[in-house]
Amino acid sequence: MQNFSYYNPVRIVFGQNTIAELPKLVPAGAKIMMTYGGGSIFKNGVYEQAKQALQGYAVVEFGGIEANPHYETCMKAVELGRNEHVNFLLAVGGGSVADATKFIAGAIPWTKGDPWAFMMVHAPQLTEAIPMGCVITLPATGSEMNYSAVITRAATQEKFHFGDPMVYPQFSIIDPQVTFSLPQRQVINGIADTFVHVMEQYMTYDVNTPLQDHLAEGIIRTLLDESPKVLSKPDDYDVRANLFWCSTLGLNGLIGMGVVQDWATHMIGHELTALYGLDHGVTLAIIMPELWRYKIAGKKGKLIQLGKEVFGVDTPEATIRKTEEFFHSIGMKTKLADYGVQAEEAAAHVRDRFNARGTKLGEHGEHGDIDGNAAYAILRNC
Amino acid sequence: MQNFSYYNPVRIVFGQNTIAELPKLVPAGAKIMMTYGGGSIFKNGVYEQAKQALQGYAVVEFGGIEANPHYETCMKAVELGRNEHVNFLLAVGGGSVADATKFIAGAIPWTKGDPWAFMMVHAPQLTEAIPMGCVITLPATGSEMNYSAVITRAATQEKFHFGDPMVYPQFSIIDPQVTFSLPQRQVINGIADTFVHVMEQYMTYDVNTPLQDHLAEGIIRTLLDESPKVLSKPDDYDVRANLFWCSTLGLNGLIGMGVVQDWATHMIGHELTALYGLDHGVTLAIIMPELWRYKIAGKKGKLIQLGKEVFGVDTPEATIRKTEEFFHSIGMKTKLADYGVQAEEAAAHVRDRFNARGTKLGEHGEHGDIDGNAAYAILRNC
Repeated sequence: MQNFSYYNPVRIVFGQNTIAELPKLVPAGAKIMMTYGGGSIFKNGVYEQAKQALQGYAVVEFGGIEANPHYETCMKAVELGRNEHVNFLLAVGGGSVADATKFIAGAIPWTKGDPWAFMMVHAPQLTEAIPMGCVITLPATGSEMNYSAVITRAATQEKFHFGDPMVYPQFSIIDPQVTFSLPQRQVINGIADTFVHVMEQYMTYDVNTPLQDHLAEGIIRTLLDESPKVLSKPDDYDVRANLFWCSTLGLNGLIGMGVVQDWATHMIGHELTALYGLDHGVTLAIIMPELWRYKIAGKKGKLIQLGKEVFGVDTPEATIRKTEEFFHSIGMKTKLADYGVQAEEAAAHVRDRFNARGTKLGEHGEHGDIDGNAAYAILRNC
Repeated sequence: MQNFSYYNPVRIVFGQNTIAELPKLVPAGAKIMMTYGGGSIFKNGVYEQAKQALQGYAVVEFGGIEANPHYETCMKAVELGRNEHVNFLLAVGGGSVADATKFIAGAIPWTKGDPWAFMMVHAPQLTEAIPMGCVITLPATGSEMNYSAVITRAATQEKFHFGDPMVYPQFSIIDPQVTFSLPQRQVINGIADTFVHVMEQYMTYDVNTPLQDHLAEGIIRTLLDESPKVLSKPDDYDVRANLFWCSTLGLNGLIGMGVVQDWATHMIGHELTALYGLDHGVTLAIIMPELWRYKIAGKKGKLIQLGKEVFGVDTPEATIRKTEEFFHSIGMKTKLADYGVQAEEAAAHVRDRFNARGTKLGEHGEHGDIDGNAAYAILRNC
């Protein structure tokens, strides 16, 4: 096991009708900026529940945060937040709203010029952030219980990640009931996202961490069991609750402690989303199986382990095929051509981008060997 | 799944040579009271490492905290802490030292008379506590990552529990190397303690929580695999690390979220420790199998599930036997007679104590039906 440090102070308030607990969680007298997305919270009752719970607070609203949230949009919220002197941010929506709000939380008090600067350094940069909380409505990113965010700069088609303990949400409310009305596409994307988050922290090489491995396998097993149910019985509360808890624990840091992590699938996926607008979950389901094939020698032990523990198979290739079959079984297509993207072209694009970024920002994976050429080799097969 | 709220802000610093990180964790300029036990930290080098790391801090020491720490001992530390105006507590030792230090942390600023009062109310009572951290040296209680403590009042032979988020450690340092020199008896007790902690949060009835179940089963599987190794290879770092992480995650609250919990084995066990001085882990290994037999109808589903997932058996009684066999395999005896205690007499003692406490403090378990008479029926078979 590798040395590690684990610290996660997010308070999770999980269950039916928990949005009503906002007044116990938001500091009394706070001036709140409530951030949200394209309007689904008006249809599923979440907006109304949140506003009802926040009676007596001063609330300004900032809506219209898009999927794969844009820096440009966030900066408008930063301006509003500064002008209105808000001192608490409440993200109401899915992972994109949570991610955007983390960026906004760090950017409002940022005094060193353009806040994009703190996206470009792979280490915490913030000395201050506006406190924030979440009402999270989509099981997918785990953003509700971590300090990470992914932001896209539309002008340059760049999608980058930052992480800083200063932007841990103080709390996240999860009421699985609000996911009953999610469009199937978002449910499926969320399942793929969760699956790949867990695998980015598992499918590398063994450093003798059986407990972490069993926790990861437990999330995957639950995901495999619950996913068909959520598609056939979308109103089943327990299934929704189980899926949401898988997403949250899939990326709250715990299963990644002491292990070797990968994240190359995500890094390549971000490029595809930035270049072609593909859904995040879609990019992951496309890339991961071929990345595993490309790295099959180095990942052999863990591929066999996952196969035995979860799928009942015993070869690396069988595990990869079972993973693809799972994605297909929930209606997720796993080839670029399925989405009208030409693999050779995408591969060349990503290769050139990775190469242009050089060794620090353009090399990924547990061995740092997923560079432009590797990404090219992987994506050609996608 | 049941509604839940999860909040655990303890920073875990885990790994080799991590005691040296104390200066990054203890606030600069803190006046520290360092608490410890009977002196094992002088033999295993932990005292020296801690003092070395704390150079430049003002440190007063309070040693001599016993296993199953006494209220009477803690009150001497409270007096010292008040007189010395300490503003940080550093527990250096096992779960007993951590537990005692939690009590001391709450008791020093307590202004409403005898601090024993906050032990007697089954709800958080503290509005203030001295901040504390731990250097934890024994994998067993999980006290390093929770807000609970068990304290014994020697004068009245009462062993009670309290829990209050005010006494969460700010950090806990876990260096598995310091456990290489643990006496075998403490290692075995710690394994039994961890096993039973997990089972108190699992072996009840199903409320559709497959993820939590898999997490618990993952801890138990790791414990079953690693325990023989720790006995045959006491210097194996990874085995020690894996066991410690099992203990910590076994009782940091996570696996208990949204599930139905039991804890009757602990409540009966505390009585046996208070009356006969039996080690805590010993009492748990004695009681749990017979408590499961007594409640075999209500626990049937989960007994079968544990059997299938962990032991490869498929009846409730087979799971119970496998559990007993595991305890025996690590050298833990599971009958009162093995420790010179007459079962009938112990059963009558505990019955009378539970009955005397009445319905609020004398009824336990997931159905509240482990009262004095039930405890009597269980203990007669122990």
